[in-house]
Amino acid sequence: MIRSLILKVAKLKFQVRNLFAPLILLLLSGLILFSCSQPQPLIILMTDFGEKDFYIGAIKGAIYKVNPNARIDYISNYISKFNVEEGAYTLLKSAVEYPAGTIFVVVVDPGVGTKRKPIAVKTNDGKIYIGPDNGIFSLVIEKFGLAAIFEISNPDVMQKDKMSSTFHGRDIFGPAGAHLSRGVPIEQLGGVLADYVRFDSEKARIVDGKVVGKIVVVDDYGNVISNIQKSLFEELAWSLGGPLKVKVGSREFSVEFVKAYGDVPTGGYLGLFGSGEVFEVAINQGNLSKALNLKSGERIEISK
Amino acid sequence: MIRSLILKVAKLKFQVRNLFAPLILLLLSGLILFSCSQPQPLIILMTDFGEKDFYIGAIKGAIYKVNPNARIDYISNYISKFNVEEGAYTLLKSAVEYPAGTIFVVVVDPGVGTKRKPIAVKTNDGKIYIGPDNGIFSLVIEKFGLAAIFEISNPDVMQKDKMSSTFHGRDIFGPAGAHLSRGVPIEQLGGVLADYVRFDSEKARIVDGKVVGKIVVVDDYGNVISNIQKSLFEELAWSLGGPLKVKVGSREFSVEFVKAYGDVPTGGYLGLFGSGEVFEVAINQGNLSKALNLKSGERIEISK
Amino acid sequence: MIRSLILKVAKLKFQVRNLFAPLILLLLSGLILFSCSQPQPLIILMTDFGEKDFYIGAIKGAIYKVNPNARIDYISNYISKFNVEEGAYTLLKSAVEYPAGTIFVVVVDPGVGTKRKPIAVKTNDGKIYIGPDNGIFSLVIEKFGLAAIFEISNPDVMQKDKMSSTFHGRDIFGPAGAHLSRGVPIEQLGGVLADYVRFDSEKARIVDGKVVGKIVVVDDYGNVISNIQKSLFEELAWSLGGPLKVKVGSREFSVEFVKAYGDVPTGGYLGLFGSGEVFEVAINQGNLSKALNLKSGERIEISK
Repeated sequence: MIRSLILKVAKLKFQVRNLFAPLILLLLSGLILFSCSQPQPLIILMTDFGEKDFYIGAIKGAIYKVNPNARIDYISNYISKFNVEEGAYTLLKSAVEYPAGTIFVVVVDPGVGTKRKPIAVKTNDGKIYIGPDNGIFSLVIEKFGLAAIFEISNPDVMQKDKMSSTFHGRDIFGPAGAHLSRGVPIEQLGGVLADYVRFDSEKARIVDGKVVGKIVVVDDYGNVISNIQKSLFEELAWSLGGPLKVKVGSREFSVEFVKAYGDVPTGGYLGLFGSGEVFEVAINQGNLSKALNLKSGERIEISK
Repeated sequence: MIRSLILKVAKLKFQVRNLFAPLILLLLSGLILFSCSQPQPLIILMTDFGEKDFYIGAIKGAIYKVNPNARIDYISNYISKFNVEEGAYTLLKSAVEYPAGTIFVVVVDPGVGTKRKPIAVKTNDGKIYIGPDNGIFSLVIEKFGLAAIFEISNPDVMQKDKMSSTFHGRDIFGPAGAHLSRGVPIEQLGGVLADYVRFDSEKARIVDGKVVGKIVVVDDYGNVISNIQKSLFEELAWSLGGPLKVKVGSREFSVEFVKAYGDVPTGGYLGLFGSGEVFEVAINQGNLSKALNLKSGERIEISK
Repeated sequence: MIRSLILKVAKLKFQVRNLFAPLILLLLSGLILFSCSQPQPLIILMTDFGEKDFYIGAIKGAIYKVNPNARIDYISNYISKFNVEEGAYTLLKSAVEYPAGTIFVVVVDPGVGTKRKPIAVKTNDGKIYIGPDNGIFSLVIEKFGLAAIFEISNPDVMQKDKMSSTFHGRDIFGPAGAHLSRGVPIEQLGGVLADYVRFDSEKARIVDGKVVGKIVVVDDYGNVISNIQKSLFEELAWSLGGPLKVKVGSREFSVEFVKAYGDVPTGGYLGLFGSGEVFEVAINQGNLSKALNLKSGERIEISK
C-alpha cells in the first residue's frame, strides 16, 4: 500500500513537472511568434527638404539611433518649400491609405526655432502625426477626427544634447516618433493641448451657376488639381460627357468632362474627378500647367 | 512480477510523455526560426510619378494596408512620363539583380482607365511583374522567359470600395502585389492570358560597315545610351583603343573607344560598353547630352 | 531495498530528463528571441546617381541578392555629380546620427574603373564605410577616428561574373556591404591598407579681423553653407544679435546674426550656425543662392 502510494505521488509529481515544460513552451512560443509577427509600426516621413542634402539622411539616422528596428518609409520630400497648405493636402490623400498605428513624421516647418509648438496628434482612426503646429495637420484632423493633441516637451524623447534651432525634424520630431514606435505611450511626450493651428481654406462654392474654387496643387505631370468636390457638380446636375469651360485668370479653355485621361486623344484637354476625389484639368499625356502657365493658389472657375 | 510490470509501463509512459515536450519544442522552434528567417518577399516599385505628389505615398500605403509587414523598395519614380520603352529598359537592367521571388509593381500607365488590361507576369527566373499590359514588360519577358500571364480581375485583390479610373497603382497594382507578398497564389488574381502587348523595337544593325541604332535613354549624367550590343562591334572586329565616329542627326563627333570613363582626360569624349551592356557615348565628368543636345529616341550611327 | 533503489534511480533519471527539455527550451528561446530582436545592420546608400536611371535599382538588387533580409535606406542620391568634397560633408553630417554597426555604401566615384582602390573603412565609433578611395571618407575618418582600412579585393564578395569597369556600386561596393551585413568579417574583404586618399581642404580662418572661409554646399532651400566653425566667431567675440557683413566675390550684403530662420521677417537676410554646426547665410523663406547667384566652392568673407 505504502509503496503504491509513493508510486502514485511520484507519478503525480511527474505529471505536474511534465506539464510545466510544455506550458512554458507554449507561453514562450506564443510570445515569440507574437513579437515576430507583430510588425514594427511604420514611421512615414513627409518633408519639404528635397533629397540633395544631409537632412533626410540625418532625420532617418536620428530615428534608427533610438529604434534600430524602425521601419521607415516616406510620402514625399518634395513638398513645395514652406507650403503648409499643399503639404496638408498631400498628407491627407496619402495618410488615408495607411494602416492604423502608422506614425507620420511631417516636417514642413517655416517657423522652426520660433514659438510654434512641436506637437503629436492622434486621430480617431488610430494614426499618429508628429510635426510643427502650423496647420499642416488641419485636413487629416478634419477628415479623421481628433482624438488628442500633445505638445512635445519631454526632453527624454528629443536629442537634448544637440538641440538646434533650425532642424527639429532631426532633434525633436524624428526621435519622438522613434520613441513612440518602441512603445512609449503618446501621453509621455508632453502635456495635452486644447487646440491647434489651422489655416483658413476657402471652400469651393457655386456662384451664378459656376463652380468657383482654387488650384490646390499642380502635380508632377502638370495636371491642375482644384479643391472642387463632386457634390458641387451634382448640385448643378453636371454629368460626364459634355464640354466644360475653365477660366483661370485671363486664361480660358474648354475641357471634355471624362472619367480617364485616355478618354480623350493624346494632347486633348480634359477634366475629371481624379484619384484625389477633387476636380482636376489636364492634357492627356501632356503638361497643362506648362502649356498655359497655371499655378497653385490661383482661382479657378468652371462653367457649362 | 506485476509490480515490476506496472513500473515498466509507468517508465514507458514517462518516456513517451517526456519525448513529447521536446518534440513540440523542436517543431515549434523550427517553425518560428523558419518564419523569422524567411524574409517577406520584396515589393519593388518603378513608376513615372515623380516624388512631389501624394502618389507614391498612396501606393505604398495601399500595400502596407494589405500587408503591414511588407518590405517595399523602389527602382525609380522618375521614368520619363508615359515613356513605356524607357521604362522597359530601366526595369530590365534593374530586375536582373534581384533575388527570385521579388514582386515588381510597375506603373508607367498612359492608358489607365481605358481598355488596357492590368496584368501579372511570372518569368522563368521566378520573379513577378505587376502593371499595365502596355509593353512595359516586353524586355524582361524576352530576356528571362515567360512562365505565365494573368489578367488581374479578382476584386478581392483590389481596393474595390474606392476604385478610380486614374490611379490603378493605388487601387489595383499595389494591392495585388501586397496580396501576393502575403502568400496569395498568382493564379487567384484572375484568368490566364494567352498573349501580351509588346512594342516594336527596331534592333540595332550593321549598314554599310556602320553600326546603326537608337538612343534608348539619356542618363542623369548626360551619358547617351544606345541599343547597340557588343556583338555588332565584334562582327566588325572593332576593338578597344581607337577613335570612333559618332553621328546623331546633324551632330558628328569623335570618341575614344575605352573601358572606363576615367580612361580619357576630364572633358574628353569617349564611348564604352557600360554597365547596361550596351554602347554609350559620354564626356568624362561632363554632360554630353547637354553639350550636343542629344535626346532619347534619336538615331545614332557609329563608324570607324 | 533493491526495488526502492531502482525507484530512486528511475526518479533521478526522470528529473534529469525532465530538466533537459526546459533547458533546451530556454536556450532555443533565447536564441530565437535574440535573432528576432537583433536587427539586420542597416545598409545606408549615398550616391551621385540621381534617381531616374536603373542605377540605384541595380545596386539595391545586388545587395538584396546577397542578403534577401537586408535593410537598405539612403541619405541622398543627389550629391552633385563627381563632387567628392560635397559628398564627404553630407556623409559626415548624416553618418553621425546612425547607430553603431551601420554600413554605409557610398558611390561618388569619378575614377571608377581606373586605379583608384575600392575600400572599406572602419571608424572608432563602430561604423563601416564602403566606397572608392578618393577622399570621400576624409571627414568621417577625421571626426570619428580610424580603426582600420581594407582594400576590397576578395572576388567572393563581388559580382565576379559580371564585373564592369563603370559601375562598381553594383559590382563591388553593394555586394561587399551585403556580405558584411550577413556577418562576414571586414578582414575577409581584402588586405589592410596603411593609408587613404584625402583631399586638401583649406580650413576657414581669421584674417585681419575677418572670418574667411569657403561655401561648401548650397542646400536645396538655397541656403549658403560655409566651412566656418563657431570657434572662429568666439575668438572674435562675435555674439548673436548684430548685423554682419558678408562678401562673396563682388557680391556684398548684410545679414542679421540670429538663432533661427524665423528670427527675421519673411524675406529678411540672416546668418546662423545651422544644424550642420557651421555658419550659413540665408533668406527667411527665400532662396539666397538664386537671389545673388552664390555657388558652392566660392570664397566667403564675414566681417562686423
